[in-house]
Amino acid sequence: MPDFSIGVDLGGTNLRVAAVGRDGKLLEKVNVPTRTELGPDRTIDEMCGAIERVAATHRESGNFFGTGIGVLGIVDQETGKVRKSSNYPGWEGYPVRAAIESRLRTSELLGKYARVVLDNDANMAALGEQWLGAARGVPNAAVITLGTGIGGGIVLNGKIWMGMNGMAGEFGHVTVEPDGVSCGCGSRGCAERYASASAIMRMARQAVATGNAPGLALAAASDTEVGAKSIYELAMRGDLPAVEIFRTFGRYLGIMLAGAVNVLNLDMYVLAGGVVGAWDVFAPAMFEEMRSRSLVYAATAPENPLRGEKQTAAGKTVVTRALLGGDAGLYGAARAAEMGE
Amino acid sequence: MPDFSIGVDLGGTNLRVAAVGRDGKLLEKVNVPTRTELGPDRTIDEMCGAIERVAATHRESGNFFGTGIGVLGIVDQETGKVRKSSNYPGWEGYPVRAAIESRLRTSELLGKYARVVLDNDANMAALGEQWLGAARGVPNAAVITLGTGIGGGIVLNGKIWMGMNGMAGEFGHVTVEPDGVSCGCGSRGCAERYASASAIMRMARQAVATGNAPGLALAAASDTEVGAKSIYELAMRGDLPAVEIFRTFGRYLGIMLAGAVNVLNLDMYVLAGGVVGAWDVFAPAMFEEMRSRSLVYAATAPENPLRGEKQTAAGKTVVTRALLGGDAGLYGAARAAEMGE
Repeated sequence: MPDFSIGVDLGGTNLRVAAVGRDGKLLEKVNVPTRTELGPDRTIDEMCGAIERVAATHRESGNFFGTGIGVLGIVDQETGKVRKSSNYPGWEGYPVRAAIESRLRTSELLGKYARVVLDNDANMAALGEQWLGAARGVPNAAVITLGTGIGGGIVLNGKIWMGMNGMAGEFGHVTVEPDGVSCGCGSRGCAERYASASAIMRMARQAVATGNAPGLALAAASDTEVGAKSIYELAMRGDLPAVEIFRTFGRYLGIMLAGAVNVLNLDMYVLAGGVVGAWDVFAPAMFEEMRSRSLVYAATAPENPLRGEKQTAAGKTVVTRALLGGDAGLYGAARAAEMGE
Repeated sequence: MPDFSIGVDLGGTNLRVAAVGRDGKLLEKVNVPTRTELGPDRTIDEMCGAIERVAATHRESGNFFGTGIGVLGIVDQETGKVRKSSNYPGWEGYPVRAAIESRLRTSELLGKYARVVLDNDANMAALGEQWLGAARGVPNAAVITLGTGIGGGIVLNGKIWMGMNGMAGEFGHVTVEPDGVSCGCGSRGCAERYASASAIMRMARQAVATGNAPGLALAAASDTEVGAKSIYELAMRGDLPAVEIFRTFGRYLGIMLAGAVNVLNLDMYVLAGGVVGAWDVFAPAMFEEMRSRSLVYAATAPENPLRGEKQTAAGKTVVTRALLGGDAGLYGAARAAEMGE
């Protein structure tokens, strides 16, 4: 009969609500399709309904410690609003946290526990991996999710590092090539233009356009996730243009990580997202750059960095793969609620 | 009669010892020429003698809170040894902190207060500026010193962020141009190869070599500090090759800072070192890069960033000039001792 909290992950088309025990055990997980483009009122209503149902189910078995919610976008912690909301059209300026809290306060069951912790999904995922995943027991870690773009979260001494106003951890827009590929953010040469699933697709299309990459031509026709996987399989079979793409990916990821290691000197950097499955083909170039570009990394590199394992000896900088997959944010949100962060 | 602590700044040729009141008032400052190349024993003996003399002078006037010492090099906080010691030949592997503490323990006066806080001078300078200088009252700040190289220190919630093993804040070796100028650290395109006093001299020599920079030819003949100042004066008079050098300087400093802002989201970034006097000629290019390369900076930029002032409105990212000059490290060391960090 464990005490528990509720973690919520609000994607663009999916709302997931989980009850998680204080010991990290998943007690229940529900999936609610949602259409955030219909506006915040409706989504928040659906969300609060689901939170109540899940909380009611487990109410008898232990104390309830509140709700944490991860959203796609930067949360202004002062106001509880979502700053960048291209994922939630019409939500901008809406007092999300206050609306959820006031809705939960009307619940007979939850009134006393209506307080909500709202944060960016990348921060929640970082806290989840640090609580129960790859960085378990590691006090200082960054979790960097390589997807369509790059999301990032930093945990210092076991707590999310929000920065001045919740915007810390934007690893994806660190410049890695000053005159490089232009980015939607208005800059050029951002890390996410070279080291994300969509960057792999862009590089594949470019290689196909040269006419010298017959293997890639087919793979690049499918959508991003599938495409990146097919390109990985080509690279594993030794297709040179595919190998070259992952080498570029690893090189720029390594440049970005080298800078992060030089500045932050964390114990661990966790890489998340489906494309991390291609570790074998990008990690060698990544570690080569890190070693040559970061004196901090060179002084603290583990003996076999490619294994990506936590070392028993302290004082080593470890780069490794995430363990919790898509559930990291749910666990992290539950943890944030429990910590009252 | 204030309570006080002692701050020590151990340079390569100079040892400075100061008594600083808890309120930040400088009570006394002494300068002891030293030759660190004669080995740690002798220097530590001189240092401890000076600490005792200064402490004795102020002993009657208030309680003594211990000693903080800033050194040129990275301190391993576990062992109290100095990691990188090209500035102190023969010191490598020497248990600096333990030796100082055991030497102070023999003092009748200081035996009870022999505990020493040892840290990198850049970290001490950061704490000093955050305590009494440009970042006074600002909880989260980085202090970046542009000299022969670039030194950096980060203060989070009023405390030095050491990182896993004391190596955080190496802003100078963040890559800003992947295939750029080679660096002594083994990498290429490090920030300090473009945005330090010695980088200005290198760029001046290169411009002179083209034969198209008559104004620079004279200035580049003098030593680094003087030379950078003459080149600044040329730029202020409109000498185009000199203007171009500071534009490059500002551009790469801006690229480095944009990355730092994206990842750390601090309230303030303080630039220190003599070359910061050239603010007028490098700051416009620096802010231009920051605005275009950091979505976090663009969202939080103050109205008049060039003034470099702390804004009354919270939530603004401020880049400004240091206020304490060469004394920042002394104040920071005294503060670290008082905090017992």
